[in-house]
Amino acid sequence: MNELPFDQVRTLLAVVDEGTFDAAAAALHVTPSAVSQRIKMLEQRTGRVLLMRTKPVRPTESGQVVVRFARQLASLERDMQMELGIAADSGPARLPIAVNADSLATWFLPALTRVPQNPPICFDLHREDEAHTAALLREGRVMAAVTSSAEPVAGCTVRPLGLARYLPVASPQFAARHLSAGPLERCLPGAPVIVFDRRDELQDRFVRSLTSDGSGAGRLRHYVPTSEGFCDAVAAGLGWGLVPEPQAEPLLRSGALTELLPGRRVDVPLYWQQWKLDVPALALVAATIASAAAESLHNQD
Amino acid sequence: MNELPFDQVRTLLAVVDEGTFDAAAAALHVTPSAVSQRIKMLEQRTGRVLLMRTKPVRPTESGQVVVRFARQLASLERDMQMELGIAADSGPARLPIAVNADSLATWFLPALTRVPQNPPICFDLHREDEAHTAALLREGRVMAAVTSSAEPVAGCTVRPLGLARYLPVASPQFAARHLSAGPLERCLPGAPVIVFDRRDELQDRFVRSLTSDGSGAGRLRHYVPTSEGFCDAVAAGLGWGLVPEPQAEPLLRSGALTELLPGRRVDVPLYWQQWKLDVPALALVAATIASAAAESLHNQD
Repeated sequence: MNELPFDQVRTLLAVVDEGTFDAAAAALHVTPSAVSQRIKMLEQRTGRVLLMRTKPVRPTESGQVVVRFARQLASLERDMQMELGIAADSGPARLPIAVNADSLATWFLPALTRVPQNPPICFDLHREDEAHTAALLREGRVMAAVTSSAEPVAGCTVRPLGLARYLPVASPQFAARHLSAGPLERCLPGAPVIVFDRRDELQDRFVRSLTSDGSGAGRLRHYVPTSEGFCDAVAAGLGWGLVPEPQAEPLLRSGALTELLPGRRVDVPLYWQQWKLDVPALALVAATIASAAAESLHNQD
Repeated sequence: MNELPFDQVRTLLAVVDEGTFDAAAAALHVTPSAVSQRIKMLEQRTGRVLLMRTKPVRPTESGQVVVRFARQLASLERDMQMELGIAADSGPARLPIAVNADSLATWFLPALTRVPQNPPICFDLHREDEAHTAALLREGRVMAAVTSSAEPVAGCTVRPLGLARYLPVASPQFAARHLSAGPLERCLPGAPVIVFDRRDELQDRFVRSLTSDGSGAGRLRHYVPTSEGFCDAVAAGLGWGLVPEPQAEPLLRSGALTELLPGRRVDVPLYWQQWKLDVPALALVAATIASAAAESLHNQD
């Protein structure tokens, strides 16, 4: 990897970030044919196709590896210049982090406010989406992620943060109308349910844990893909759902929600994935997040 | 369009939804070569390339038009079977709708709870993302959208819903620390700011309306891409920002937020875009949303 000419690597990054060869040429102040030439040479040198010539241009799997390398290179270069006091006017450190929606809605932002802002660090948060977070990490578009996936992305380290706790709840009116005609395992599969998105299996798994025939939640499902919207939809009586403990507790106390199975909890392990790279701002944030998670989440054992 | 053989149109839809020719073949219970053959014939008949052979397969601009037609066809067919009482066990009506994050966090969910649920309608909400919402409507992946874009998508009607109102606010501690050294137009460009995502220009436009040199908000920007997270980040003192009125008001009353320019508001017009198609469930939802918006949003004039 060290043998790759940096101008070619930087050109690849510019093409991926700008989306087209022409836009990359404009950003780099070179001609489009120079951009095209550099990419061709880089592909010859690596022996791999690095870019899909779509609109916008997208890196191939091999291309993602080189793009991550390019971003890490830029980050290290910036740190070195800062330390040497020769940094160009490149602005404050910028930390792109992917965070799953429920963490962002509960413990994550208070944790971020604890990160010392001297020198200032700008947070560039992305909503985690498991389908894309691995690609975001692989391409180096985010430096770190709070995710429920324990599977390490290539080039990243993983450490457990703790367990996020969910409570199966509904509004009292909803429970009276849909869940009072018999035992829960019989009523629940036919009742309307709130589901975060197509990948959210929490509700189905919960129903399967109750029923003997292995059936999941019902067909009357509303998809509400924001954390607060999910909780609001349950409180409004559109359906039942598994709500994060910090959001459910005040609503249980006020009587806006009721537990479907008092005392029953569902725990989901969360992980911190980050680049294997010694960036001081990233290390500071990682340590702050880990200690905040230890206070806000439940213990793994 | 009426001349296109329906089996070929349905096959195109299956390929787009399943992502590969093989998966589409499995879903349709035919061989992959039959799928490939039908797509080729459809492309010959329309005289257009309909699919990009990427992984997953994606429709071209022309392909999107045919895909939308296929979805509308399926929706009409379903309605007809329901009316004739010959519907297969296809489940309740499912309405995919894209909604911008701030609407979803404020007035939209209470509006949805007013939609009569007899017969039941399942809501399939997508977070609006202007870059993708036009494509979602064009492909027919959503039937309707609440969006700040007045530009009608091909095949859709647009109607104004009203004005969403935003307040420029910060925490009192933040204002004392960053905005008390001089007039606002001098302090604001240097102060940390919360921005929703790369397409969010509200804060920059607000600063530009104050300054004479046309400069936008500062470089110390934190990106927080959820509506509630945005508001939480402002209240936590990470930066100033333009917060939707319904979220800002209780925090202004409790003293957690303070107005940067008392009385100053920024209004953003919202629109309802939907398929030009007479689906009863869609008409019911559109009417309910429009009347709820008239109550919750401000008047256009």
